[in-house]
Amino acid sequence: MSLTDCSTATAELDSDCRSATALPIAQRFILAIDLPMRHAGQRRVFLRVEVVGSPQSPAVWVAGGISAGQHVLRNALDVSEGWWQSLADQRGALDPGRYRLLACDWVGAEGDIDAPIDTADQADAIALALDALGIARLHAFVGASYGGMVGLQFAARHAARLKRLVVLSAADRPNPFASAFRALQRQVVALGQLQCADELGLALARQLAMLSYRTPEEFAERFAGPVALEHGRARCSAEEYLQVCGQRYVQRWNSTAFLRLSESIDLHQINPGDVAVPTTLFAVEQDWLAPAEQICALRDALPNAAGCEVIASKYGHDAFLKEPARVDAVLTRAFES
Amino acid sequence: MSLTDCSTATAELDSDCRSATALPIAQRFILAIDLPMRHAGQRRVFLRVEVVGSPQSPAVWVAGGISAGQHVLRNALDVSEGWWQSLADQRGALDPGRYRLLACDWVGAEGDIDAPIDTADQADAIALALDALGIARLHAFVGASYGGMVGLQFAARHAARLKRLVVLSAADRPNPFASAFRALQRQVVALGQLQCADELGLALARQLAMLSYRTPEEFAERFAGPVALEHGRARCSAEEYLQVCGQRYVQRWNSTAFLRLSESIDLHQINPGDVAVPTTLFAVEQDWLAPAEQICALRDALPNAAGCEVIASKYGHDAFLKEPARVDAVLTRAFES
Repeated sequence: MSLTDCSTATAELDSDCRSATALPIAQRFILAIDLPMRHAGQRRVFLRVEVVGSPQSPAVWVAGGISAGQHVLRNALDVSEGWWQSLADQRGALDPGRYRLLACDWVGAEGDIDAPIDTADQADAIALALDALGIARLHAFVGASYGGMVGLQFAARHAARLKRLVVLSAADRPNPFASAFRALQRQVVALGQLQCADELGLALARQLAMLSYRTPEEFAERFAGPVALEHGRARCSAEEYLQVCGQRYVQRWNSTAFLRLSESIDLHQINPGDVAVPTTLFAVEQDWLAPAEQICALRDALPNAAGCEVIASKYGHDAFLKEPARVDAVLTRAFES
Repeated sequence: MSLTDCSTATAELDSDCRSATALPIAQRFILAIDLPMRHAGQRRVFLRVEVVGSPQSPAVWVAGGISAGQHVLRNALDVSEGWWQSLADQRGALDPGRYRLLACDWVGAEGDIDAPIDTADQADAIALALDALGIARLHAFVGASYGGMVGLQFAARHAARLKRLVVLSAADRPNPFASAFRALQRQVVALGQLQCADELGLALARQLAMLSYRTPEEFAERFAGPVALEHGRARCSAEEYLQVCGQRYVQRWNSTAFLRLSESIDLHQINPGDVAVPTTLFAVEQDWLAPAEQICALRDALPNAAGCEVIASKYGHDAFLKEPARVDAVLTRAFES
């Protein structure tokens, strides 16, 4: 099929014609799970899981940031871009022809749980999902950002369920500066809620969070234009981009989900000594949410560290999404080791 | 006078007894100035100026961040700590026995001007203040943060009024990432104003701003404690400190002053080629409001750069306040060159 044929035939796919030829098979499950939550008590949660690839292939669990979910990559069931489409498009490690890729929406993502949610709760939910799906052991758990924290909990609590762990841009506990910034974001949401302006507060908190995912270097390149005066107020060149991010976010998320998942990052804490499986780490020099020094210290504290790749990237914390070639190389090495 | 005598005699001074023996003489002026403002039209402003030291000494103008003002250092008129007390306590460059130190409250600091305020307006107000005080030429203009931007404008617009300029942690234009962060802080204030919760919004914006003045390194040291659960919510270890900062801020400032001075940073722009006087620059590797790369690029663009000292400091943008020995060395060299 030529490029022209492809973009004519399936409009949704014109940005990446390679996928159009053979979209991987996929299944979705809504699993009713009785979850003993650390702070929220026993809850019945409905875990939404998407599985891409053949049931015969080795299973790989894939987990991302607090705004990521079950839809990791374009597939026959859902042709829209997944949250880790950039990595899937590398056609390397995240290969649904070779692995069975599983991911879920986070517990609390619907805003139905207004209580503290621990990364241990997420890890336990995933273990129960694997029970329900009849998967005894994962070839790998790959987690980035919040997903990396959950991966560490999963390895600490369910060591027999995975052969290896890959943790990108996450550590054994939150960074105090990042925690302070998230606490202020939650206060912005609360300020909005206080006055029935939920969406304004949530959109603003998301915009603040966006800044912590990126870096001054990237913004200096992207938004070099001068500050304009509009209606007697300064308007900075990044404001429109950030507003769009905020508006898009409130269409999919609600305040409770944001508050409780943001908080969950700050409550995260594991003992590195409890993570016995071979663990590959990935850090970004410019990431100030999960600083490279902290991730390197985690490597030193792990009983079975399989390496820690530190890269430089103007994308900071978001490098796991924006530097797919670098990430793919790390995953490929980890999966084959 | 012994340490014990001192702390008994003057309670306000017990933290720095050396100053108690001979507080420098000082005067305060409220100067009525007719200021042609760039965006706000012709305004009569009342500029509050504090002058410390002998009228016979060479005059040095001292300017700090948007929350700094006329009271730079403890003196006979006002024994409270000044905003640059840390530097004055070095008893080096900022010596009122050797120089006549002048500083003012910013135009707009009282929240009386609800219109865009340009750094050029501040520079012109200072030039008019020098006229009123009969000072033809400054030995030096020393500006840090916003004060550094105003210093650059002053040198560009009133070259005959100063012999040398020292700019700390400021550049010829704002950094786009920092501008985006300030724009969001202003939206937090606006969210508060929306429903008569001005102080909540302002305190929250100030807390966000505080994060941009410091670094992950410093917070990791200071707030290493675990995140606690209080009343069903996570409470991070830096939250109390930040709240105190926010509450203290709203006691002295109002929303209009914050909005217009924050905005003034983003409107700042000068042509480096217009700054003809010898200019010494100071930058901090960890400062993401005024990145060292941007300040080094300014040095390269200045016709008469007298050097650019780049230091490493966990205090980031606030290093000009928290690393007084390093700053004093830079000022001493600049003043004597």
